[in-house]
Amino acid sequence: MGAPARAIPHASSRAAVLDVIRAAGTISRVGLIQATGFTGATISTVVRKLIEDGLVVETGRAESTGGKPRVLLQLNQSSRYAVGVHLDHSGIAYVLTDLGGSVVARMTRAGAGTDDPPAVVERMAAEVATLIEGVGVDEERVLGIGLVSPGPLTPAAGMGPAPPIMRHWEDFPLDQEVRRATGLPVVLGNDATAAALGEYWSGAVSGSSTFAAVYVCTGIGSGILINGIPYHGSSGNAGEIGHICLDPDGPECWCGARGCTEVLAGPAAVVARARADTAVARAAGLDEAGGRGHSSVAADFAAVARAARRGEPGARAIVDRAARYLAVATRTLANVLDLDRVVLTGQSLAVAGSMYLPVVREELDRAFFSRATHPVAVQISTSAATAPAIGAATMVLQSELVPLQPGTRIPGDTRPERAAPRPVGT
Amino acid sequence: MGAPARAIPHASSRAAVLDVIRAAGTISRVGLIQATGFTGATISTVVRKLIEDGLVVETGRAESTGGKPRVLLQLNQSSRYAVGVHLDHSGIAYVLTDLGGSVVARMTRAGAGTDDPPAVVERMAAEVATLIEGVGVDEERVLGIGLVSPGPLTPAAGMGPAPPIMRHWEDFPLDQEVRRATGLPVVLGNDATAAALGEYWSGAVSGSSTFAAVYVCTGIGSGILINGIPYHGSSGNAGEIGHICLDPDGPECWCGARGCTEVLAGPAAVVARARADTAVARAAGLDEAGGRGHSSVAADFAAVARAARRGEPGARAIVDRAARYLAVATRTLANVLDLDRVVLTGQSLAVAGSMYLPVVREELDRAFFSRATHPVAVQISTSAATAPAIGAATMVLQSELVPLQPGTRIPGDTRPERAAPRPVGT
Repeated sequence: MGAPARAIPHASSRAAVLDVIRAAGTISRVGLIQATGFTGATISTVVRKLIEDGLVVETGRAESTGGKPRVLLQLNQSSRYAVGVHLDHSGIAYVLTDLGGSVVARMTRAGAGTDDPPAVVERMAAEVATLIEGVGVDEERVLGIGLVSPGPLTPAAGMGPAPPIMRHWEDFPLDQEVRRATGLPVVLGNDATAAALGEYWSGAVSGSSTFAAVYVCTGIGSGILINGIPYHGSSGNAGEIGHICLDPDGPECWCGARGCTEVLAGPAAVVARARADTAVARAAGLDEAGGRGHSSVAADFAAVARAARRGEPGARAIVDRAARYLAVATRTLANVLDLDRVVLTGQSLAVAGSMYLPVVREELDRAFFSRATHPVAVQISTSAATAPAIGAATMVLQSELVPLQPGTRIPGDTRPERAAPRPVGT
Repeated sequence: MGAPARAIPHASSRAAVLDVIRAAGTISRVGLIQATGFTGATISTVVRKLIEDGLVVETGRAESTGGKPRVLLQLNQSSRYAVGVHLDHSGIAYVLTDLGGSVVARMTRAGAGTDDPPAVVERMAAEVATLIEGVGVDEERVLGIGLVSPGPLTPAAGMGPAPPIMRHWEDFPLDQEVRRATGLPVVLGNDATAAALGEYWSGAVSGSSTFAAVYVCTGIGSGILINGIPYHGSSGNAGEIGHICLDPDGPECWCGARGCTEVLAGPAAVVARARADTAVARAAGLDEAGGRGHSSVAADFAAVARAARRGEPGARAIVDRAARYLAVATRTLANVLDLDRVVLTGQSLAVAGSMYLPVVREELDRAFFSRATHPVAVQISTSAATAPAIGAATMVLQSELVPLQPGTRIPGDTRPERAAPRPVGT
């Protein structure tokens, strides 16, 4: 009995009800009782408040099997909006979604590159304003900005430590600065987790209880959803598939360990191997791109992947080797988490996914447990370029719509204004 | 919004309230409101029903900061009991716990060995009866038997496919047969997950939000608890750290893949390496044990570990190498799940844990993410031999005390009598 009382590991009944309404499209109060297991009294109270707040509307009546017809509820889609921003070295993607997570505007701009963080923040603020004004949405209705970037995240704010390519962002107070520049609340998150959320909200993974988005952009990561809820881990850095060890004696990774998936098979490793082979470098046009000084790891990786797809044997061998490593890491992820679905996503897999898919499938078939107990479905994302930004926007929707109780804990939540969990007293 | 509505991924309010009362020891209704975030009306209703069912009692009053003193609630510990059974090749451990998870009786008997499953089941039924009668508990108050064994578990029942050493248990209808032989409800589970539950309920990991028990007995596994709730995955087989790939070109594992932690560093691999070295085999006394025909992998591993602890250099080298592999796999587990605590447990680590601990600590220090964002605490279990059986009993407590709502889903739940989750209708 030594274990202390702890916070309940789920969102409030209000958020749960709202999410069921969102997912169902339209649903009656009786349907909500069945779906949530809450009492009629709880559903009645929660729904009344959601209607008062303008988030839910009543819409017609359903046929009933007996008794009076049931009033149907649905989200008031245009009552609130959220901005999603996916900040990466190679590009910045923006979306504006309504309360239901539907994208009402999107745009892509130049990446952070080597620019100074303050300059990038000012540019992002201007681009967010353009996004919102472009569709004529009242800024009062914009709940905030979800801003996702390569991890890991520190509890305080921002990236830090950052991957090498974004090292100059380390310890930059990203959330504070974006909040100041835009005047909007900011929720920070990991790009890979946001990608998983984006896939989920776009309906690509329906029916999955335990799903991971394997995300390759500039680096390698993964986002994990359990019954649609992001799994964050104790510090918001879960799913670091890029730092699964595939060779204890392998080359040193920027993270300090050896033989990580990313150092063996990340886009930067693929590009380095391609550059080291004159024929491959020429076939992929790497020298020219490098010479112009405008290349990014993701762009160079895409060039190698295209050369591989064209049948350049050296490029194909390099990509196949990387795919095999990623596939083995994905198998480890699937075994540890007992996944039922994997989506290959991110900018780099949008280009190379067709070459990775069969290798990942084959490797998962080696996974005794999945084969013997249940299949693991593998698919390529159909929205790899925008999934992280969409997920970032849904983080705002989820965050702002959940009136957090004292003691409710969101692992990985980085907002400083949240009250600390209270110890349980009498 | 193509994603379908889904079940709420948390237990009922009743189970949540009961768990907070259990963990707090004593707590007022106001304390419950603060701890759970539920409304006063919900707490009032749930507590009244718990008292009616005899599970909770009122006990005195707390000092209040104002207004009238608050009535304190606590579990009625002796109102219900649960049996926990840990079935392994090398031993069968039994515990009887009260409603609070406190052990009121325990015993250990010979392992399943190579005996026929039906004979082992009959023996287990007799031993369970002895356990219950020994402390004079009315069998009416025994909720059921939690029975845990090496995974993986299939959705239907029992082990299947089983590890090589328990291959003859494959597809044996374990739960049905134990239920028939004992007359008690049976909940099956994975031994490693049960070990994690046992550590949690015994208070060894208080303050941890994301914790794994790295479990080495005959094989290698891990159990994962997130805020005290077991993480099962989509089929109840999460945490298979024994099948994390550490070398894509390594030796073939019984699971069908290559280079798994278990084939590289499991107790059977350690024993095989020791047997292959005449000096080590002699120092560990392996020949004698093998010659008597009564050895088990766990017993042989313990013999090698004791030789290593005595300073036999060959044995020490073999154990250190195995410890390094397990440490790397633990680092992968910690990175993927973003753990804040690891407990080394299981019969084999009860013997060898002091040699494994520094190696695991050192390897986790290489984990950039954990080092940079938060520490990962590592400790050796103080109840390695009984943790799985205690966890098995708590599975019964949790299972039986949660009146499952339609649509509430317990991943990995193998009981056939549970109604299938209902689709959300209107």
